[in-house]
Amino acid sequence: MDEKPFIIDGLQYSNWSREIFSQMNRGSIAATHVTICYHENFRETVENIAAWNKRFKKFSDLIVHGLNVEDISNAYSNGKTAIIFGFQNCSPIEQNISFVEICHQLGARFMQLSYNNQSLLATGCYEDEDPGITRMGHQVIKEMNRIGMVVDMSHSAKRSTLEAIEISERPIAITHANPSFWHPALRNKSKDILQELADTGGILGLSLYPHHLKNKSQCTLEDFCEMVARTVEIMDVNCVGFGSDLCQDQPDSVVEWMRNGTWTRETDFGEGSVTNAGFPPQPKWFKTNLDFINIIKGLRDIGFSKSEVAKIAGKNWLEFLKKSF
Amino acid sequence: MDEKPFIIDGLQYSNWSREIFSQMNRGSIAATHVTICYHENFRETVENIAAWNKRFKKFSDLIVHGLNVEDISNAYSNGKTAIIFGFQNCSPIEQNISFVEICHQLGARFMQLSYNNQSLLATGCYEDEDPGITRMGHQVIKEMNRIGMVVDMSHSAKRSTLEAIEISERPIAITHANPSFWHPALRNKSKDILQELADTGGILGLSLYPHHLKNKSQCTLEDFCEMVARTVEIMDVNCVGFGSDLCQDQPDSVVEWMRNGTWTRETDFGEGSVTNAGFPPQPKWFKTNLDFINIIKGLRDIGFSKSEVAKIAGKNWLEFLKKSF
Repeated sequence: MDEKPFIIDGLQYSNWSREIFSQMNRGSIAATHVTICYHENFRETVENIAAWNKRFKKFSDLIVHGLNVEDISNAYSNGKTAIIFGFQNCSPIEQNISFVEICHQLGARFMQLSYNNQSLLATGCYEDEDPGITRMGHQVIKEMNRIGMVVDMSHSAKRSTLEAIEISERPIAITHANPSFWHPALRNKSKDILQELADTGGILGLSLYPHHLKNKSQCTLEDFCEMVARTVEIMDVNCVGFGSDLCQDQPDSVVEWMRNGTWTRETDFGEGSVTNAGFPPQPKWFKTNLDFINIIKGLRDIGFSKSEVAKIAGKNWLEFLKKSF
Repeated sequence: MDEKPFIIDGLQYSNWSREIFSQMNRGSIAATHVTICYHENFRETVENIAAWNKRFKKFSDLIVHGLNVEDISNAYSNGKTAIIFGFQNCSPIEQNISFVEICHQLGARFMQLSYNNQSLLATGCYEDEDPGITRMGHQVIKEMNRIGMVVDMSHSAKRSTLEAIEISERPIAITHANPSFWHPALRNKSKDILQELADTGGILGLSLYPHHLKNKSQCTLEDFCEMVARTVEIMDVNCVGFGSDLCQDQPDSVVEWMRNGTWTRETDFGEGSVTNAGFPPQPKWFKTNLDFINIIKGLRDIGFSKSEVAKIAGKNWLEFLKKSF
């Protein structure tokens, strides 16, 4: 029988339940970065953290709060999953740079500088123009570096992303996206971003969200694994991991909220459309945390070595987090 | 004896006191737009409004809350001053477009789309790059137009300002700034902005803040009045008013707060410098609300007619507000 895999997932936002946490355990997920904010301000984010504190008690047989790398190793040894908090937007720090440390004290370890739109710090990938990192953004990146909070540019625009890589004194992450050479979505990343990310010790979490996949919901496992191989050629095998963006059991109202928050009176469909507004169906080979094993097998099948697959599945994320926290 | 002047001031942020309100009354200030937010979020702004509600009770012999144009006329008839609320930043609406209406219900009638830095809506004049109005900015301008809240671009960057003028279906205001041809400060405005503003029925409130004045604190009344004449040549006499930016009796800690808020760990000196960090001294001919009369006389002295001076002193603002609220 094969050794139990060690998996870290770069991003999930599921409709949390005993079933999902149990699948994480059975699927050998040592840790996952979970989103605790899309558009929420500080106060609202604190309420989300309070909800997680309840889950940590209620599901203490399955999950632990991941605050450092030891928590991940311990969770893995105990057959549990470490839950690492992250923000998809900088809204929880509001206008206040001191809130970076406050949010870190409350457990946050990742923060995207922008989510689709312009933020106080950086530009999102759906804006027409991208002026790069703002005055406050320069200050906040420095503060995140000091505190040990990972700069995540998954939903940011190109220039902002390149500048964040350059400005940050610690490696940064793109927790959930794919290369645009494979599937040209606004959310996917260009070769030069991937190269700069890799050159500075950063990491890309490869996404399983259908809008980021070639042929979307019909994407094949083989196509996905071939993409991983091409990405590794650009970035090196030490710089890629998983970032599934799994939104299991979420109603369509959640993707509508992600896209629209409270910033518009019109309806923004993001990567979807009027006729395809909801969550797209997951490819049949990746629907739950039990399915990472399919990708692990697929990577072996196209020629990745056992140790390379172990890196992609979790060890790269672990090494990255050691440098980051 | 001359008729009592009718004066509206486009912006003040003084250390409010009985003395200052009394000077407003004695100086014939029918109304002034007062700043109730620089960096505050919604909750903090509500606290500032609560403080004003107390002032309206305590100083009910001197001031009234100005919610519409009738309040201004009534205040003038009763020898009082109408206080009109405005935000120097969009921070009170946080990420929520619905808060435009909420803030209007609480009395806010002006909102700057950005204050020096990049905001969620527009770019401030101290950013290196100006990408123009953001996705959320387009939505919020439309909402402000619907609700009747004035778009103010005093501290915004050039492209953002020009785009706001173009996007807004109602005329916009630059409540406190001077032309950059007269004094080239980042906060002052270029000729093309002034022309576009005037062409669309907007208004410029001319600033008495020394960093916006030629020769700063040493600026002469004659120089200021000549500048008004040159500005009127560009904009027309119907499009300029006062926007004194008077910060009477404020300690230097207040200008430090205006510049730094909570967005940086370093110290930003704005228009000042390390050796000149505080409020600059006001020119000797404009120190309190009793001194507008000096400018009114100065404008007459350089050849403005009585009716032109009446427009600049208050009637232009009144006409603008009729179109805006």
